[in-house]
Amino acid sequence: MTHAQRLAHVRDDLRQQQLDAFIVPHDDEHLGEYIPPYAERLAWLTGFTGSAGAAVVLTGKAAVFVDGRYTVQVRHQCDSALFEYRHLIEQPVLDYVLGELAAGARVGVDPRLHSRGWFDAAKKKLAARGMELVPVSLNPIDHHWHDRPEPEIRPALLLSQEYSGQHSEAKRNRIAEQLAANHIDAQLLTQAEPINWLLNIRGRDIPCLPVVLGFALLHQDGRVQLFAEPAKFEDLDLTGHSGVNVSLAPVSELEAALRELGKKGARVQLDPTTANAWSSLVLEQAGAELVFADDPCMLPKACKNPVEVQGSRTAHLRDGVAVCRFLAWLDRRLAEPNPELEDEGTLADKLHALRAEHPEFVEPSFGTISALGPNAAMCHYHHGNGTPRKLGQDAIYLVDSGGQYLDGTTDITRTVAVGEPSEEMRKLFTLVLRGHIDLACARFPAGTGGLQLDALARMPLWQQGYNFDHGTGHGVGHFLSVHEGPQRISPRGSTVPLATGMIVSNEPGYYRENAFGIRCENLEVVQPAETDGDIPVFEFEHLTQVPFDRRLIDTAWLDTRHIDWLNHYHAGVWEKISPQLAGEDLIWLEQATRPL
Amino acid sequence: MTHAQRLAHVRDDLRQQQLDAFIVPHDDEHLGEYIPPYAERLAWLTGFTGSAGAAVVLTGKAAVFVDGRYTVQVRHQCDSALFEYRHLIEQPVLDYVLGELAAGARVGVDPRLHSRGWFDAAKKKLAARGMELVPVSLNPIDHHWHDRPEPEIRPALLLSQEYSGQHSEAKRNRIAEQLAANHIDAQLLTQAEPINWLLNIRGRDIPCLPVVLGFALLHQDGRVQLFAEPAKFEDLDLTGHSGVNVSLAPVSELEAALRELGKKGARVQLDPTTANAWSSLVLEQAGAELVFADDPCMLPKACKNPVEVQGSRTAHLRDGVAVCRFLAWLDRRLAEPNPELEDEGTLADKLHALRAEHPEFVEPSFGTISALGPNAAMCHYHHGNGTPRKLGQDAIYLVDSGGQYLDGTTDITRTVAVGEPSEEMRKLFTLVLRGHIDLACARFPAGTGGLQLDALARMPLWQQGYNFDHGTGHGVGHFLSVHEGPQRISPRGSTVPLATGMIVSNEPGYYRENAFGIRCENLEVVQPAETDGDIPVFEFEHLTQVPFDRRLIDTAWLDTRHIDWLNHYHAGVWEKISPQLAGEDLIWLEQATRPL
Repeated sequence: MTHAQRLAHVRDDLRQQQLDAFIVPHDDEHLGEYIPPYAERLAWLTGFTGSAGAAVVLTGKAAVFVDGRYTVQVRHQCDSALFEYRHLIEQPVLDYVLGELAAGARVGVDPRLHSRGWFDAAKKKLAARGMELVPVSLNPIDHHWHDRPEPEIRPALLLSQEYSGQHSEAKRNRIAEQLAANHIDAQLLTQAEPINWLLNIRGRDIPCLPVVLGFALLHQDGRVQLFAEPAKFEDLDLTGHSGVNVSLAPVSELEAALRELGKKGARVQLDPTTANAWSSLVLEQAGAELVFADDPCMLPKACKNPVEVQGSRTAHLRDGVAVCRFLAWLDRRLAEPNPELEDEGTLADKLHALRAEHPEFVEPSFGTISALGPNAAMCHYHHGNGTPRKLGQDAIYLVDSGGQYLDGTTDITRTVAVGEPSEEMRKLFTLVLRGHIDLACARFPAGTGGLQLDALARMPLWQQGYNFDHGTGHGVGHFLSVHEGPQRISPRGSTVPLATGMIVSNEPGYYRENAFGIRCENLEVVQPAETDGDIPVFEFEHLTQVPFDRRLIDTAWLDTRHIDWLNHYHAGVWEKISPQLAGEDLIWLEQATRPL
Repeated sequence: MTHAQRLAHVRDDLRQQQLDAFIVPHDDEHLGEYIPPYAERLAWLTGFTGSAGAAVVLTGKAAVFVDGRYTVQVRHQCDSALFEYRHLIEQPVLDYVLGELAAGARVGVDPRLHSRGWFDAAKKKLAARGMELVPVSLNPIDHHWHDRPEPEIRPALLLSQEYSGQHSEAKRNRIAEQLAANHIDAQLLTQAEPINWLLNIRGRDIPCLPVVLGFALLHQDGRVQLFAEPAKFEDLDLTGHSGVNVSLAPVSELEAALRELGKKGARVQLDPTTANAWSSLVLEQAGAELVFADDPCMLPKACKNPVEVQGSRTAHLRDGVAVCRFLAWLDRRLAEPNPELEDEGTLADKLHALRAEHPEFVEPSFGTISALGPNAAMCHYHHGNGTPRKLGQDAIYLVDSGGQYLDGTTDITRTVAVGEPSEEMRKLFTLVLRGHIDLACARFPAGTGGLQLDALARMPLWQQGYNFDHGTGHGVGHFLSVHEGPQRISPRGSTVPLATGMIVSNEPGYYRENAFGIRCENLEVVQPAETDGDIPVFEFEHLTQVPFDRRLIDTAWLDTRHIDWLNHYHAGVWEKISPQLAGEDLIWLEQATRPL
């Protein structure tokens, strides 16, 4: 079926349902960062395969919405005769709808694919203009997508306490107590990460995010009803692992369970920013009282326990060995003939192969950004979206990658010389690194949010009239999503206080369009610091163990304490990584970690 | 009349008006920081004379609410047989009322003395518990306060353009355009500062804040109706100065003007956080449509124009001469016999006398904090509230003071050695000073709010496990309030972007209870910085020109760049201040500004 035909089919449904518009988001019903192939509705309709976007189908026209990362890609993938191109952030979907339609219009959405928060806000905005938001019961795309892939049944994994550090029962009882204290009968969970964390389970349902997709109800007594594909748990003793009060049912039984809760007039809590609108509309219609609040799993999940922290350290050592071997190989490869036989893709493959040598490696934690020269100026560059650049023509190379291991998740960016970096590149690399170090050295009292620390990483750049246009740090999960909240270090960042066990990235950068890109990223874990002072303060312990490229450092832009920090950091890398390297890799590490 | 009799009179009124409670705030109808003697209702009722507080009168009991600064003072001033003591912040007035009364209760307030925002929130909170908020038309205190002082008629001052830098008409037209664009007919102004700024007038109605008290309506066409005591403008050509479309009427005519606007069904804008409830209730009852928004004068008032900035520089030079002469005199006095003849009060008087030698000096910008030894650990200490400590027994002295000059407002804190400071005191002073320097050296792009910069000033303390429990910086007016918004540098601070011409204090500190207190405060003005970078950035220019005490600096706690900054700062002070000093004062300055 062509995209024109697909669009025509969707419009048929619009007519039948008397709708003037239908909104197609990229999200699936779990509203997570990644979606499985059977949920690629936006791609089916428009052809656009990016990781974020939306479409609006009107009776006479249609539009596809993408952000700055995908403005080129969308032109390759979507037929402009069928879809206007729009900017996802600058002209949000709803503003487009409001601009195109008049009072009386009916705007269809699949309530499973939008958060309750978005749904309520959209409903209000449309109502203010005399329009109606109509939740459809049959998504027109699902109706017409005949060759839709079946969800793959990949076995779940029961994460042993050796890795999780806390039994599911203990996690559930702690949160259930909070629910009871607030007179909440049950917590609805529709995102995969909190459910997998809560039950100490993992899965392979989607790439990069090791989760079983599902829904869950956590009751006031600590009991959990998990709604997921039972075949994924075949031969696994879920109740033996997670607790006898954990039951498993197919997703098809979720609706009945929600209705039953509603019939009892239960008070059900959910996070309107993450829970899909459908589940809460079902609850509400059945008679439940909804309580909107932050997902109570988020904070305990973010604050890793000592076993998770130790696991993350181990995962980072392993990951550090792979990245060091890669960087050592890269330097050797550059010295060999025909470096141009390597391109951004083969480099990414090599790094992946080195990670994959470790039996504990499960998969990448996100798509590797392997970017030479000007490509590195695009923060979310992927070599698969165009012609990869070849080694040999550029001065610097940026590689941002990570791995999922049974004991932790990694995420590291190194920018390295692969040619003759200019003085200006070395200046800017050093300013970025200086900001990285200033943030890494921060100490701060209880109550400090990432928003308060963000400027530390930017100040060396700001001093010279530079900046970078992304956050400084995101939360990172434990063998879970490489992007997690609620903590965040950013100018528009979170005021959620940083607390012991939170893992955050520290990744200032600098990007010059059509020229080069620089980023220095370690993961840090928040720990109590020892001082002689009056008040307890926290500090960051760096998890990542890979040298920063000495060839890109211009010490004129550093203070003594930055150089001391680097020498100390490199000495630690040598001490931890060298026992696991040999031959030329070991010689490389010795040189790469020499004191400045 | 005794306080018991006053309380009995108020209770008589409660009975007559069928009220179960009456709330007495410290504020007057302008809701500013300072109030004139005739508005000291709280003091009349309770005896408490602090600068912030409240009281609640119930039929059978009463309570007085003060913050941490006044817990000792309130015990001296208020009879505990008449008033329970409560903490203003920890147990807010309304929570007390809710705790003491039951459904059906009627809670009286004078709507002139509360903001509209507070009024609406209180009404809602009380209604949720079945109680009613009753705006009274006759304040029981006004009813029974027979020897109430008359408002003093002090002449207003027309601030020439030489000082203001912009004609009132230009200011009014700029804001009126915004009003017109938003279809607002008139802006209601009930605070003194924006009105005085807008009309380029000043006054002497209250101590420390050089304003004429009044109300104003700014119309969409730029016209202003000022409601203030006309006798204050006798012999002054207000319309000649501020513009022909500025009219003056007595405050008693405000109500009629509001009613007239209401009758026309006008859309009237006001800031619910600063405008009193009474005026907006009158407007609403008369038929006006209220629009709640930030006071549009706040931002242009905060961003000083080049003439105001230049005036502030000049005022700070003058102020610097006075403070340097004071510090020089203090050192000499310490070397003379019987230093104990001086106490915190005589020191404050000496500093005042030196400022007052300048003909441009109008008055202090706030009550001087002159604190020796342990008294300096109380951030808002005033020597008048107890027995002043004498010179000679303590190691360090903190003096926080400022002046109102025709061309600007100053605010400076210096902490100086007056005995033998311990190594720990020098360490802590140096950490505070280091934080001051780190903030002073900040550069930042457009859009950066004070909240993002606050940690810079704290980080040296945080590193060692110390902190201070107040904001790092407040806005400062131009020959206006020494505390102004919307900009603020604080952990709970403002996200309002810092912009060219904003003046902020930079005042980290450290306080050890019962031992000592340290604060280093300069005023800074935001200016564009010159760099070779990609983006425009701002920087701070320090206005304050007084040396930091070299005897308290332990250079072991500073980096080279901090020492460079101090040497450069001191060289600048020497260059600017030395031409105006002579004799022993000049010798002192030469020593005080020597390179470290």
